[in-house]
Amino acid sequence: MTVASDSDDLQNPDLQLTRRSARPAGTVVTVRGIEIGGSGLVIMAGPCAVESEDQLLATARAVKAAGAHILRGGAFKPRTSPYSFQGLKEEGLRLLARARDETGLPIVTEVLDVRHVELVARYADILQVGSRSMQNVILLEEVGRSGKPVLLKRGMSATLDEYLSAAEYVMSNGNGDVILCERGIRTFEPSTRNTLDLNAVPMLQRRSHLPVLVDPSHGTGHAWMVARMACAGVAAGADGVLVEVHPDPASALSDGEHALTPDEFAVMASQLAAVGLAVGRSMATSRRGVETAPEVAR
Amino acid sequence: MTVASDSDDLQNPDLQLTRRSARPAGTVVTVRGIEIGGSGLVIMAGPCAVESEDQLLATARAVKAAGAHILRGGAFKPRTSPYSFQGLKEEGLRLLARARDETGLPIVTEVLDVRHVELVARYADILQVGSRSMQNVILLEEVGRSGKPVLLKRGMSATLDEYLSAAEYVMSNGNGDVILCERGIRTFEPSTRNTLDLNAVPMLQRRSHLPVLVDPSHGTGHAWMVARMACAGVAAGADGVLVEVHPDPASALSDGEHALTPDEFAVMASQLAAVGLAVGRSMATSRRGVETAPEVAR
Amino acid sequence: MTVASDSDDLQNPDLQLTRRSARPAGTVVTVRGIEIGGSGLVIMAGPCAVESEDQLLATARAVKAAGAHILRGGAFKPRTSPYSFQGLKEEGLRLLARARDETGLPIVTEVLDVRHVELVARYADILQVGSRSMQNVILLEEVGRSGKPVLLKRGMSATLDEYLSAAEYVMSNGNGDVILCERGIRTFEPSTRNTLDLNAVPMLQRRSHLPVLVDPSHGTGHAWMVARMACAGVAAGADGVLVEVHPDPASALSDGEHALTPDEFAVMASQLAAVGLAVGRSMATSRRGVETAPEVAR
Amino acid sequence: MTVASDSDDLQNPDLQLTRRSARPAGTVVTVRGIEIGGSGLVIMAGPCAVESEDQLLATARAVKAAGAHILRGGAFKPRTSPYSFQGLKEEGLRLLARARDETGLPIVTEVLDVRHVELVARYADILQVGSRSMQNVILLEEVGRSGKPVLLKRGMSATLDEYLSAAEYVMSNGNGDVILCERGIRTFEPSTRNTLDLNAVPMLQRRSHLPVLVDPSHGTGHAWMVARMACAGVAAGADGVLVEVHPDPASALSDGEHALTPDEFAVMASQLAAVGLAVGRSMATSRRGVETAPEVAR
Repeated sequence: MTVASDSDDLQNPDLQLTRRSARPAGTVVTVRGIEIGGSGLVIMAGPCAVESEDQLLATARAVKAAGAHILRGGAFKPRTSPYSFQGLKEEGLRLLARARDETGLPIVTEVLDVRHVELVARYADILQVGSRSMQNVILLEEVGRSGKPVLLKRGMSATLDEYLSAAEYVMSNGNGDVILCERGIRTFEPSTRNTLDLNAVPMLQRRSHLPVLVDPSHGTGHAWMVARMACAGVAAGADGVLVEVHPDPASALSDGEHALTPDEFAVMASQLAAVGLAVGRSMATSRRGVETAPEVAR
Repeated sequence: MTVASDSDDLQNPDLQLTRRSARPAGTVVTVRGIEIGGSGLVIMAGPCAVESEDQLLATARAVKAAGAHILRGGAFKPRTSPYSFQGLKEEGLRLLARARDETGLPIVTEVLDVRHVELVARYADILQVGSRSMQNVILLEEVGRSGKPVLLKRGMSATLDEYLSAAEYVMSNGNGDVILCERGIRTFEPSTRNTLDLNAVPMLQRRSHLPVLVDPSHGTGHAWMVARMACAGVAAGADGVLVEVHPDPASALSDGEHALTPDEFAVMASQLAAVGLAVGRSMATSRRGVETAPEVAR
Repeated sequence: MTVASDSDDLQNPDLQLTRRSARPAGTVVTVRGIEIGGSGLVIMAGPCAVESEDQLLATARAVKAAGAHILRGGAFKPRTSPYSFQGLKEEGLRLLARARDETGLPIVTEVLDVRHVELVARYADILQVGSRSMQNVILLEEVGRSGKPVLLKRGMSATLDEYLSAAEYVMSNGNGDVILCERGIRTFEPSTRNTLDLNAVPMLQRRSHLPVLVDPSHGTGHAWMVARMACAGVAAGADGVLVEVHPDPASALSDGEHALTPDEFAVMASQLAAVGLAVGRSMATSRRGVETAPEVAR
Repeated sequence: MTVASDSDDLQNPDLQLTRRSARPAGTVVTVRGIEIGGSGLVIMAGPCAVESEDQLLATARAVKAAGAHILRGGAFKPRTSPYSFQGLKEEGLRLLARARDETGLPIVTEVLDVRHVELVARYADILQVGSRSMQNVILLEEVGRSGKPVLLKRGMSATLDEYLSAAEYVMSNGNGDVILCERGIRTFEPSTRNTLDLNAVPMLQRRSHLPVLVDPSHGTGHAWMVARMACAGVAAGADGVLVEVHPDPASALSDGEHALTPDEFAVMASQLAAVGLAVGRSMATSRRGVETAPEVAR
């Protein structure tokens, strides 16, 4: 979605590479034939954490069938408490690669430790930098040098200026494939886990050329709100959504309260398609066509 | 839009009248044949402040032609500075009534002073309680006794619990015709005037039976963001929108930076209709049918 | 406490009367011989709500004995829920006056309803405008015309600019006797009721000439925090404190969780005196001396 | 300063090591004979960034002469923009060690990159984890294993529960020498860089046994506010302060607007001592006495 020009009053001279005027037509990040930031809407879906082969494959097949383009899943988990489940680590990465092999879905997973960037980049198609790491400038520099697209989530109390400055760190290290993702900010309201800030969508698109997704799962913390807020995000102009799906949310090792079941996800995907059409956007399709098949069979 | 049930964990025992379970089917507020909170979407539009007969009538005709259902306009203005334009006061009310006579649009206008409730109620179809007055319990009691529908805007840092408690004040004084309106909350982000909190839409609808509108004009503070956020609000499930329109925003006496021109408003209205259809809602139509005509001609 | 000059970068041209440069030496509000904003520190103390003659008189005697200068107590209570205790109303005012007669302490009490300004002004020495009313401009105008000193509490999410604009409303209606009071702002932190913002103390004193108090009772919501935060407020430069005291906090009809017992209050008052001396300020003393006596006997 | 007990209602079962009841008498972190969290107040002072030998040594001598106990200075700087000065890196560490050798002041400096923990630990007496890194759990684990005391600054929008969870990460990796530091939270107020949250001081001391400092430099962003807020922090019960001092703030490469001159620092230190006495605390003194000298000569 192209937007006219920089908002002059908000011009931050340090945003040299991320500002809209640096690429007025907008950035399209292409991942195994899927265009993120192009005319089509992109859905990234999967479990909060990779828990087991069964859990991951069941989720991957279900979200693929319902129209997801990219599989998400956490192998290294940043947790508030040191005593919470911290992820399956490299075993989680292997399971993600297996799920990609079976479904053809590219995979996005978080890298937490700067020493793991190379390891994670060997498996993942997109490196996620989580909201707690948005100002980890060392990590931003390393993913900037990784050669892999980066999904950079907004810090939960980052201003949009700080957010774009974080993207500037990635870009200034040679990596232009940055995908932004609004995932809820911290406010005074206790009834939702965070407050999904959809104002950020048009504002980021006006100020920057980077694709913008929304994550209504973390943005609300309630499964029953996810579909509505995903639709709202697309209506606000988002280039796609990132949602958490689990075959059995009640037994999830983390964040089960906002995970969709595969059936709920399928309903959401169809609602998203309808809202997308209303704002002039269809769902993304692979630009590779039949080429995708061999890769899946790999 | 009916929503299943109270969210038990959020149950506030003092929300006796406003809670969803008190009217599971939802409240529909009917104003001169227009249903607010029914199946159709409602658009309230007009200038921030009534400035002159020409300004108001030009706006009223334009928004009517583009599909607005209700005309808004401020006669008594709550301003941060005592030296800012405070509104035309009773003369503003007279102009609003004249605009209603000419266009047939019901009118909504703010009442600020508890001593003016009777006066404003003589002219207005809906009494607006502004966000700065949301916790003015004396005013809430009086509009509760006024016999007129009340548009109660959310305070800019009110929790949803406090917001519904304010509605409870109105209802507990005998007035069940309360319309809620999310208009942006205060956060740390400086690039927008407020942060339109669309999470509030599904949460209020789950917890309460009252209609919920969104005001993307105050919620963003930027005219170029209004249409997108209005569409996002409808996609999130809002029962309609409240937007500011001015024939010449650059010369507006207040809030010109977020006012739409009549042409921009018409574009927004058609986008809203498209998104509405995508989520299963058409634009509201008058239930009075031909009865409306004579009134317009009055 | 005199402070050098306006902070130029923060100059708001509409703050004509409240800005520091309008009265560089600072404003001293004198109430029955007590100077607020002078060299001495002032303590206002009393119950959240006036509940009964016994409760009020017991508190008044105790706080007087421990060094309080002014008695506070709510007769008209702004409550979040319409079903909570709303105060004894005029009977509460009468009890306050009786407590003043007996103890000689001037009284401060909140006025909520613009139609009650004259009534409350007949009894009170200082009219309090509560934080929920800080942007009730109609009420600000009326207390501006009342001829009585006004204690204007900061709104819980008001910027300092908005706060001074509210004071400007009072002053521009002819009343220069405005006392500011920081009472906690709304943040994301759930462990305290509000976040007492002591940054506001030096900033308000730099930007304005008005006296600045702090209210650590509402600012924290926990009785055990009150003394420490009161001392912190004085160390930050506040001209005094406003604290809630109840003879039996556990049975208080409102806000018992942050009320001090009379004994705790006496300890706090002595700690405050010590910190005051460390920053060069003693406790305020009456300028009337023996004159106070006859008035008490009235 | 000992505080009675855990606040039961706030009990987080994951705070096993940091909770007050785990060490009811409180933790004292001893660094080259200086006790942090003991009966005496501690002052850490120095420049935001180490810029040159002259700048650092001039500052170190001045703060030592005025009573500082520990020298701070940044060698690795986390900056919002990739184009800002990022610090002198290892050369900065060497300069800090030289300043310690000359003045005898232990040094605290930030470690940003998990791969630098060993390097920084070779030079520093205390490892600082900055507010942007508070939820960098990988870094928390590594400093937990470093064998050096850790100064853990509060994230600018971290709840106290999240803050203590971060400390729990350090402690659960074997390091009990954690020093907390409140440095300002993010609110809606634009006139200060952050809002120094002094409520956090008593609350952290009640919930945890760890020492608590305040940083009024970052907490306010204005040099003229630093002394007052430092005094307020001590009155609130803080175990000391961390302040930025620069020989020529106007020429500082970072954060000059809140740096004190050496003269201003000396005034602040004497005010702090006065307020400390008022709340029953003197300035810390070295427990090593003459032993310190040989080490300086090393």
